[in-house]
Amino acid sequence: MRGAMDQDIFRYPVARIGIIGGGQLGRMLVKAAKQIGCTCTVLDPTPNSPAGQVSGHQIVANYQDAAALRELAESCDLTTFDLEDINSDILTELSREGRPIFPHPRLLAVVQDKLRQKEVLAAAGIPVADFLAMPEPDAALCAEFGYPLVQKARRGGYDGRGVAVLRGPGEFDGHLPLPSLIERFVPTIKELAVMVARGRDGDCRCYPVVEMRVRPEQNILDWLLAPARIDPGIAASAQQLAVRTVQALDGVGIFGIELFLAASGDLLVNEVAPRTHNSGHYTIEACMTDQFEQHLRAIAGLPLGATDLLCPAAMVNLLGAPGHHGRPVIRGLRAALAIPGVSVHIYGKAATRPYRKMGHVTVLDTDLEQALRKAKRVRELIEITGEDHP
Amino acid sequence: MRGAMDQDIFRYPVARIGIIGGGQLGRMLVKAAKQIGCTCTVLDPTPNSPAGQVSGHQIVANYQDAAALRELAESCDLTTFDLEDINSDILTELSREGRPIFPHPRLLAVVQDKLRQKEVLAAAGIPVADFLAMPEPDAALCAEFGYPLVQKARRGGYDGRGVAVLRGPGEFDGHLPLPSLIERFVPTIKELAVMVARGRDGDCRCYPVVEMRVRPEQNILDWLLAPARIDPGIAASAQQLAVRTVQALDGVGIFGIELFLAASGDLLVNEVAPRTHNSGHYTIEACMTDQFEQHLRAIAGLPLGATDLLCPAAMVNLLGAPGHHGRPVIRGLRAALAIPGVSVHIYGKAATRPYRKMGHVTVLDTDLEQALRKAKRVRELIEITGEDHP
Repeated sequence: MRGAMDQDIFRYPVARIGIIGGGQLGRMLVKAAKQIGCTCTVLDPTPNSPAGQVSGHQIVANYQDAAALRELAESCDLTTFDLEDINSDILTELSREGRPIFPHPRLLAVVQDKLRQKEVLAAAGIPVADFLAMPEPDAALCAEFGYPLVQKARRGGYDGRGVAVLRGPGEFDGHLPLPSLIERFVPTIKELAVMVARGRDGDCRCYPVVEMRVRPEQNILDWLLAPARIDPGIAASAQQLAVRTVQALDGVGIFGIELFLAASGDLLVNEVAPRTHNSGHYTIEACMTDQFEQHLRAIAGLPLGATDLLCPAAMVNLLGAPGHHGRPVIRGLRAALAIPGVSVHIYGKAATRPYRKMGHVTVLDTDLEQALRKAKRVRELIEITGEDHP
Repeated sequence: MRGAMDQDIFRYPVARIGIIGGGQLGRMLVKAAKQIGCTCTVLDPTPNSPAGQVSGHQIVANYQDAAALRELAESCDLTTFDLEDINSDILTELSREGRPIFPHPRLLAVVQDKLRQKEVLAAAGIPVADFLAMPEPDAALCAEFGYPLVQKARRGGYDGRGVAVLRGPGEFDGHLPLPSLIERFVPTIKELAVMVARGRDGDCRCYPVVEMRVRPEQNILDWLLAPARIDPGIAASAQQLAVRTVQALDGVGIFGIELFLAASGDLLVNEVAPRTHNSGHYTIEACMTDQFEQHLRAIAGLPLGATDLLCPAAMVNLLGAPGHHGRPVIRGLRAALAIPGVSVHIYGKAATRPYRKMGHVTVLDTDLEQALRKAKRVRELIEITGEDHP
């Protein structure tokens, strides 16, 4: 950085990284950044955010706050983000002024609008489910498009929010009252995901294809397996598709590409996360280079790292128990840690909420099925409830 | 913690950890502690120390400062240390008052005095090189003991400081003018090290035996290989000896046990580090549970983690270049990161000094010899010089 990009000389710190978003992704990114000699400033509205607890410097501001975003970008060598719901106009302006922001804000503007994201992918020949814009809820349009269908809010949805599955005309009343798109409901054999890193020079590195089980009730991740239990030919196709997707978006950084392995045998790209991703957490323990360091290498113009899987892994999220709020109370931690190969990550959130991501667990085991059994056992063991502060 | 040790219930934070010493060991310990839901306070005389940069809270004070050590122990649930040169009297007093400090201060008092350390090990039947107390430099005593010999300062030595090799009577003038012990110089085939964790309940976990090459000029680590290229029977004996050593000291926490594989074929314990250790850094990338998390599990009374080696590894330290001081300038980082399997750790020290530990590099490779070649190549590539601040 600092004008020495083409030479191999860095004055400490290697780079001052600005991170928009102070959640768990930012927290793990800060740890990776500091490891390779960077310093970090986090922008997040919650004081003492998970990432702010390790960065040592946080700008307390909303992700839409243009002045604060400018302050961050101007005080850092390089700015990135751990979520999509950001004022992309000011980022685009800062980028035009020459501030290095990766992934590029024009990509963020595309991806944060699920309709534009789908349009760009489809235009690039990436296979996606049939879709249609629905600017406002429209029963006739849905009927014409055909049920079952999935309605997705154009903006702001994540972890199952902003998604409604409408199985037939009788379920139209369950629609989201928002500008949206509707998609063909795809019967799937498996949901897959691939992390892809792409450097400033276009070099790409692909992680193993992983298999995700999603809880249908909350539409959130139930468990993840690395590698996916699929035919190697399908895995290779999924990786190629994921790389093509990132290339189509001209992405720089790391990307989580969610795919459907449809009952028809086809692979379809479902969604793109322009950042580190829940489906890549397993890389911390299981891969040669984890997704967080890989993202930093990519955006800082450093060579990308090896993505080899060192050991099969299973991953589960630790969610806040339903009906509970307040200071987290963690039960079963000791029992979970007694299981060989278990790594527990607690995100440092000051308060729990129902289904809030409070942490995750990765289990390494040379036997993938055994890893999955252990992961399910851990999820039974660990319960995160809440209490009022004493 | 907080009275819930016997139950499996933790209110967030899981424990407030006090760490005496804010160097790289403390830094990596803080990261591991936060991962499992602890918060940390660091005590170190250097403001914004490597560990202080990630802990979010630092008490700026000397390791001998009784009032500051008391403040730390009283504000935390659990206190530990990343170096030995600490006021162990006040720690003993705090421990008597019921403050949980691990490893126990009485062990620290033994280990920080190399003569007492040797006496305790010898009394427990642990094989060590012949040794003799030398309260003040004494040519006649050395002559009677016999050359070649190694003189070691009783206190304060580390990284080759406090050690003098005297090959014959003509080298007596090169002695250290300090209370010391003299030891038989042991011709060695290899220098080995083993990390051992021991829980509060006495449960022990042993890491693989590693092989260390030490630079004779500076008596500092040249490179490390995991696993050591030795006969499996010798490895098993080294592990048994390491466990017996920690048991003899009634240790709780993680310990670095350095051993000689003597030319005679005997294994001798050379030194004990009552803490995480340079020879265990490879565990971050290469083992199921790294030495830092393992230490935390041990001192917090949590179950110990699996120590399986996931991939062979080589490790080198990144030292400040001779003749250089001031703000670090890192050359060759980009070239080093281009080598597959390379993980670079920069410790965040604001200034370099000749031979100061500024970072380390771990290389994973399924071929151990290839890992070593890569590690040597990285050490050629990365140079850390210094400059005045602009």
